[in-house]
Amino acid sequence: MEQMIDHIKSWLEEAGEKIKSSQQTLTISQKSNRTDLVTNVDRNIQNFLIEKIHSFDPEAKILAEEEGCNQLSDLDGRVFIIDPIDGTLNFVIEGENFCIMLAVYESGVGKLGFIYDVMRNELFWGGKGIGVYKNDEPLPRPANKSLSEGLLGVNSYLFGHNKYGIREIAESSMGTRMYGCAGLELVAILKGNHIAYISNLSPWDYAAGNVLLEEFGMVTSGLFGTPLTFEKREYYLAGTSCAYAEIADLLKKEG
Amino acid sequence: MEQMIDHIKSWLEEAGEKIKSSQQTLTISQKSNRTDLVTNVDRNIQNFLIEKIHSFDPEAKILAEEEGCNQLSDLDGRVFIIDPIDGTLNFVIEGENFCIMLAVYESGVGKLGFIYDVMRNELFWGGKGIGVYKNDEPLPRPANKSLSEGLLGVNSYLFGHNKYGIREIAESSMGTRMYGCAGLELVAILKGNHIAYISNLSPWDYAAGNVLLEEFGMVTSGLFGTPLTFEKREYYLAGTSCAYAEIADLLKKEG
Repeated sequence: MEQMIDHIKSWLEEAGEKIKSSQQTLTISQKSNRTDLVTNVDRNIQNFLIEKIHSFDPEAKILAEEEGCNQLSDLDGRVFIIDPIDGTLNFVIEGENFCIMLAVYESGVGKLGFIYDVMRNELFWGGKGIGVYKNDEPLPRPANKSLSEGLLGVNSYLFGHNKYGIREIAESSMGTRMYGCAGLELVAILKGNHIAYISNLSPWDYAAGNVLLEEFGMVTSGLFGTPLTFEKREYYLAGTSCAYAEIADLLKKEG
Repeated sequence: MEQMIDHIKSWLEEAGEKIKSSQQTLTISQKSNRTDLVTNVDRNIQNFLIEKIHSFDPEAKILAEEEGCNQLSDLDGRVFIIDPIDGTLNFVIEGENFCIMLAVYESGVGKLGFIYDVMRNELFWGGKGIGVYKNDEPLPRPANKSLSEGLLGVNSYLFGHNKYGIREIAESSMGTRMYGCAGLELVAILKGNHIAYISNLSPWDYAAGNVLLEEFGMVTSGLFGTPLTFEKREYYLAGTSCAYAEIADLLKKEG
């Protein structure tokens, strides 16, 4: 496991360097709509990571955001789950506030998670039974704060349209935050900055974060408590166990 | 002017050091409601800056967030406008994502503005006719992007309740962002990361940012185009001249 961790860290570092040197030569295309973008850099980084993974473990399966890799029939065996650039809109427009995410699952169980905030040189990583780290420092386990004690990250559509009562839930927190990057919303929970995150996510948006959150005793699931499917985009809830339970109680199914 | 800039930078640096070393000893009180907080650090930093200003210019008037300084009868003469900690909730809960702001106005005209992101060691500063800088580097003037081309910072209440049609306006941008810190929302516009910001602000929330935005040819005003009063909390709009004009057209007065 330690050897795999070292490999993954070196791939991510190299991927980060590629991203930093590529911002001059972006080719941007639309996917499902005008705010759902993909760039040549997303594709290049995904291909780079896949190549590294396959030379390290030719048997490993891969689930990744960009074309050709975004479906798996099951999570049997070892699966690497990759988001080459999470927060592509921030990447394209801001050149910051995005991250690379990589997770290792074995027979459906999250073993390792990595969230790399490239421009701030902050790698959040860890895994089942090994703790959570920011670069080389262990991250302290955040307090189990309630909804009314903390800041809440939310998806703008769910909040703005008060779907499932989510705007009202957010209004009973200390404040609503929107970063436009699932990985950085989950990092905010890991740091103890936010108490929960409610969104609409694909497997590569939550796979790495979930491993780290669960290592800290936090709870992750579909919005209404069902296990995440790792198969499609779906409503997502993660938080401290206290805030998670309160939000689950307050959600209005009819929304 | 250059001498004053050097003084202000050294006060801010010292204030930042005080903040960094004070996070262990916070005393927190509520102001108008449970999410409107003030700490001993806000008060100490305000007092520290006022003392520095008065030894530099005993005649200067001061408008500042915390008690005793938050009203002025007029902006005649030289006025220093201070927010000792903008984003107090972020400061208290996150220990980051807050800033110190300081502006110098002369007879109502903004001359200098300083927004100091303490934890990232990033000082955004500049003034009328002297440009805008990030630490020692000149900041390039952002492109005059339209609403549909950029990210929009908004206040969560105005967005969540679609006041004045603001949720619909935000949905015609590339994406909605909420940072919980007016100064950092304005920095995002100065960097070209966001195209506009809509909120409900007090004078110390916008005084410094407005000087810098206007130096870049951007537009700032009350939400419906009236000049900001510097007298009270009021609805606020700032943006690239293109996005500002589009938003002004789309706002629904009846909201």
